[in-house]
Amino acid sequence: MRAAFYISDGTAITAEVFGHALLSLFPMEFDHITVPFVETEQHAKEVLYQIEQSFKESGQRPLVFFTMVNAEVGKLISQSVGINYNFLDQFVAPLEKVIGVPSKPVKHRTHSMHEQTYDIRIEAVNYALANDDGSNLKDYEEADIILVGVSRSGKTPTSLYLALQYGIKAANYPFTEEDMGDILKLPPILKRFKQKLFGLTISADRLHAIRSERRANSRYASIQQCRMELREVENLYRKEKIPCLNSTKFSVEEISAKILAQTGLKRRKY
Amino acid sequence: MRAAFYISDGTAITAEVFGHALLSLFPMEFDHITVPFVETEQHAKEVLYQIEQSFKESGQRPLVFFTMVNAEVGKLISQSVGINYNFLDQFVAPLEKVIGVPSKPVKHRTHSMHEQTYDIRIEAVNYALANDDGSNLKDYEEADIILVGVSRSGKTPTSLYLALQYGIKAANYPFTEEDMGDILKLPPILKRFKQKLFGLTISADRLHAIRSERRANSRYASIQQCRMELREVENLYRKEKIPCLNSTKFSVEEISAKILAQTGLKRRKY
Repeated sequence: MRAAFYISDGTAITAEVFGHALLSLFPMEFDHITVPFVETEQHAKEVLYQIEQSFKESGQRPLVFFTMVNAEVGKLISQSVGINYNFLDQFVAPLEKVIGVPSKPVKHRTHSMHEQTYDIRIEAVNYALANDDGSNLKDYEEADIILVGVSRSGKTPTSLYLALQYGIKAANYPFTEEDMGDILKLPPILKRFKQKLFGLTISADRLHAIRSERRANSRYASIQQCRMELREVENLYRKEKIPCLNSTKFSVEEISAKILAQTGLKRRKY
Repeated sequence: MRAAFYISDGTAITAEVFGHALLSLFPMEFDHITVPFVETEQHAKEVLYQIEQSFKESGQRPLVFFTMVNAEVGKLISQSVGINYNFLDQFVAPLEKVIGVPSKPVKHRTHSMHEQTYDIRIEAVNYALANDDGSNLKDYEEADIILVGVSRSGKTPTSLYLALQYGIKAANYPFTEEDMGDILKLPPILKRFKQKLFGLTISADRLHAIRSERRANSRYASIQQCRMELREVENLYRKEKIPCLNSTKFSVEEISAKILAQTGLKRRKY
């Protein structure tokens, strides 16, 4: 299998995202290898050797996606036996012309710690944890958004992703059977913050599968119970005009991006 | 301020990461606008109008970073009044030559749901939550890694990031004053899983600042207490040869990437 290397003197996240996006356009598999924090010539030489070995073993020239702030180390990597893509570089000169300002590479600027946005994200993670699963109803004033839905419809991972990626404070509240009674009504605590609510739903089959992994053959996991609960919450979203999303076919990244697009919620961190 | 648009018929995460990395090389601010899920010509026309308005208001041509699987919609965006970067596109043809296989764009392949890796990540998030803050000592067999450190040294956000980005099951265990006694020893439960331990540490000043936000003027937050606890854990890491990292100056992305690089831990999701 052909190897794809992602190399940087930082986290190599940019190289990974770019390389993966490009390779995902090709209907084949690659052997992915990330090498972050290549900050010395010695380390670069070790990586060059690794690339050479991969070439020898697979018989195919590895693809090498790299970003480097340290020019000396970058020059070494660009001499690898692989096919080398210093993919940011070729956009820099044209962009300098357009903007009229010379670029000023600073190490670790992209995915490193910016004092301010860092604290915002950690605070948002702590908020999401303290307000997970309806465990705390006192701090909804502070919430940017309150995700609602039945148990296992994707609320918790979504609220954590919103916190970690965007610094958004997302509480989440699960509708349980107690809330359902005869017919599901909005609990008073949620009514007060109605403008912050966002509903998640999911297909009954998928919910049944997820719950069965957790508690096989329980009433909780039965397809009848799943159908009933989903019908109730979907009716509620309609009746109360709560914006909502069916998460069945979406990744946590997609759900989060769709929530931002649908609600116009502003991220605190870009 | 000049605007930077990130546009895609998917999440636009690739466009954002690429654009941010490129713009971070320039010592200036931009007005960042992400428009995901542009899937119709109608929507594309609305975005073109938005770009035009931004140009009129700022007097500066917006930068437009876009990736599009839908060629028709992409063609529309490429006609915007901004400076348009269809940045993946120009690598596709050369890569086709190298690989010898034509590309096959499939919608939402990059950040969308791949049944298998999706479940791995959600499972890892659930694991991190169930094993947060020493709340559960029964499932360490299952852990890929166990983060240890004093309270507020960055264990929880790191374990959640490892789960969400890489599908890695990270438990975390806080050393408390009870563990310290006269001298901090490794609790028996951790001794059993010593090869999975990874220690976090942090500067006393920063820990003092973080704890003070939580409980101002408490003994817990005092600089003396912070110094004492950190000295104890750092001695322990040294004595027991536990790999460790000082998280003071690093973002959660950097901490996670460094942990992977230092331990050789394999991600379950690329």
